[in-house]
Amino acid sequence: MIKRVAILGSTGSIGSQALDAISRFPGSFSVEVLAAGNNYEVLARQARLYNPGIVVIGNKAHYTRLKESLKDTDIKVYAGGDAIEQVAASQSVDVVLAAIVGYSGLRSTISAIRAGKKIALANKETLVVAGEIIEKLARESGSLILPVDSEHSAILQCLAGETGNPVDQISLTASGGPFLNYSQKKLNEITPEQALKHPTWDMGSKITIDSASLMNKGLELIEAKWLFDLTPDQIKVVIHPQSIIHSLVHFADGSVKAQLGMPDMRVPILYALTYPQRLTTDLPRLDLLENNSLTFSEPDMRKFRNLALAYDALREGGNMPCIMNAANEIAVNAFLSGEIAFTRMPDVVAHTMEITEFSSSPGLEFLEISDNSSRNNAKNYINKLLHKK
Amino acid sequence: MIKRVAILGSTGSIGSQALDAISRFPGSFSVEVLAAGNNYEVLARQARLYNPGIVVIGNKAHYTRLKESLKDTDIKVYAGGDAIEQVAASQSVDVVLAAIVGYSGLRSTISAIRAGKKIALANKETLVVAGEIIEKLARESGSLILPVDSEHSAILQCLAGETGNPVDQISLTASGGPFLNYSQKKLNEITPEQALKHPTWDMGSKITIDSASLMNKGLELIEAKWLFDLTPDQIKVVIHPQSIIHSLVHFADGSVKAQLGMPDMRVPILYALTYPQRLTTDLPRLDLLENNSLTFSEPDMRKFRNLALAYDALREGGNMPCIMNAANEIAVNAFLSGEIAFTRMPDVVAHTMEITEFSSSPGLEFLEISDNSSRNNAKNYINKLLHKK
Repeated sequence: MIKRVAILGSTGSIGSQALDAISRFPGSFSVEVLAAGNNYEVLARQARLYNPGIVVIGNKAHYTRLKESLKDTDIKVYAGGDAIEQVAASQSVDVVLAAIVGYSGLRSTISAIRAGKKIALANKETLVVAGEIIEKLARESGSLILPVDSEHSAILQCLAGETGNPVDQISLTASGGPFLNYSQKKLNEITPEQALKHPTWDMGSKITIDSASLMNKGLELIEAKWLFDLTPDQIKVVIHPQSIIHSLVHFADGSVKAQLGMPDMRVPILYALTYPQRLTTDLPRLDLLENNSLTFSEPDMRKFRNLALAYDALREGGNMPCIMNAANEIAVNAFLSGEIAFTRMPDVVAHTMEITEFSSSPGLEFLEISDNSSRNNAKNYINKLLHKK
Repeated sequence: MIKRVAILGSTGSIGSQALDAISRFPGSFSVEVLAAGNNYEVLARQARLYNPGIVVIGNKAHYTRLKESLKDTDIKVYAGGDAIEQVAASQSVDVVLAAIVGYSGLRSTISAIRAGKKIALANKETLVVAGEIIEKLARESGSLILPVDSEHSAILQCLAGETGNPVDQISLTASGGPFLNYSQKKLNEITPEQALKHPTWDMGSKITIDSASLMNKGLELIEAKWLFDLTPDQIKVVIHPQSIIHSLVHFADGSVKAQLGMPDMRVPILYALTYPQRLTTDLPRLDLLENNSLTFSEPDMRKFRNLALAYDALREGGNMPCIMNAANEIAVNAFLSGEIAFTRMPDVVAHTMEITEFSSSPGLEFLEISDNSSRNNAKNYINKLLHKK
């Protein structure tokens, strides 16, 4: 049966890789909806190529140009965040790939979950910010949330066929980023250009910085808690510079399962779309004789303080992951625009986590307030840092 | 529900490890039958400890002494190969651990399969010698054959939850044995004492030599074909000296799954007994920070010719694996008794494979004939070698 797919965030890194992957299986998928935030030109090109029923541009300012460039087609064109929310719940869609980066992807993902859709979740922030609410909504609507992140996809794959079997812990692998072995002094001097040269995965700039600062792994800790119903102590991070083992599950009988592969997001994207089935693809294969040495080490949480902050947020729960996530988005922007040093980002996050109002069981509205005030708190702190200079 | 277990080969390495593992879960298992070939003293001790309903000693010469030493118990005592076959099919048994080493374990395993028992298969030769027949019998009786070998258990674990998903290949890992990096000259001079010091797993002497000569991996190739319905080209061997990854499945979507763990046979033994469930055990856990480097290399089939011979036997099929296995048993005995050099063992096997009558679809009787004539051919060849000296 053909799976009808909506891709929210189609012009981003995950969205475009998903389209590449999907287009290899015309008999398995039909693209029903494409939605993007700002990039109306790429969206129009994708629309011509994949011929969805509907396209949506988040930024209403681009509506007219998008509409104009697709006027000779039957494709329906909408604009605005509300429209993305609506199409995410559309009856003509079976699976929603939630790949809008950052906090702004949360609302449309919730809309799809409320509608009981199968969710291929690439938007980390959904579970980081609102994991408890999301899990409850998914349980109520029967929505199945399947991770696209390679680490969580690895865990999901290792847990296939293991229903009810006791788990000791999971090990999320982390490449350690390009600065794994940098001294504290060298870390201070990292430029945005250096940080954007990530060694293995093809991905967007926000995630690339998060990978280098280990905040990406921090967000994944929290995601893992909600996806797999784990306690903080059950979630470990292990540095694995080769990025071949994508994560491991340690079962309580002493057996460990791992998922491995070349770094290609199309594999976990397709797995999320077809779970628990697999397709036969021509995607790159892992050759153990070429990737013949796999190593592990402990993450240095003093040097990469974001990871320690994420464990704090994971343990405190409530709106703390939301605060951390919002502060980090501001910190990453400030780093990318040259306002603060690479090693200042955890300071911004830690400070914001300290001063922003905590709530142990926030609703969605309070989370939105937390998100806003965290961003303000982070910005104010960065301004103070700038004035000190 | 309590699983009623028969352990055939209880005094051997696998049998005694199984008893150790089972005894940790008195609420999950009851030991109904213990059977051994010769070691009546250990068998009597085990019988007192685990209180089975029945014990059987294969060698009838030991019957009286075994009976005598258990005369103050209610345990029924039998003797002889036929008795082992009968108890393997006993109504009071749910799972049969088939752990009698060598060709002599075949008959009792077949008896258990015919009776539709769940089989925890530690006897390699069953599938190596008679894979085609066994698979057919198991299909007819509904018997489920679950591997105990750590490599095949790894494959089984990786395939859990993957029903119908296309597989590219499997990688059977091999430690490479203690002589992995020996020169040809040094290989010639290996003594039985050296060969019996296997670095990782606790196991019997026949398997220890087979591990050092890579014949063990050769037998596993053939076993894997029948257990998982694979073509010869789908079964690869990769040298992995750390023996932490126990094997891998490469799926056709580009994803690879692996099972890892400390080298402890009790894990796969319990998994075979409880499949697809897992128990919570206190068996040794894998620490990735201690086992922090996993390496892979290609097996050298010129230096370890047994592996090439096993691929030949796998490809030719029919009674060729039976011939290979019988010749190897003789060759290993000749090496252990100091009659031939370590590097002569493959010569014995190759010669026997060349001169023994081939049949492409042998029945059980012809396999027994092949086994006998292969042993004779191997012995004659060894005698010729001895006279040349």
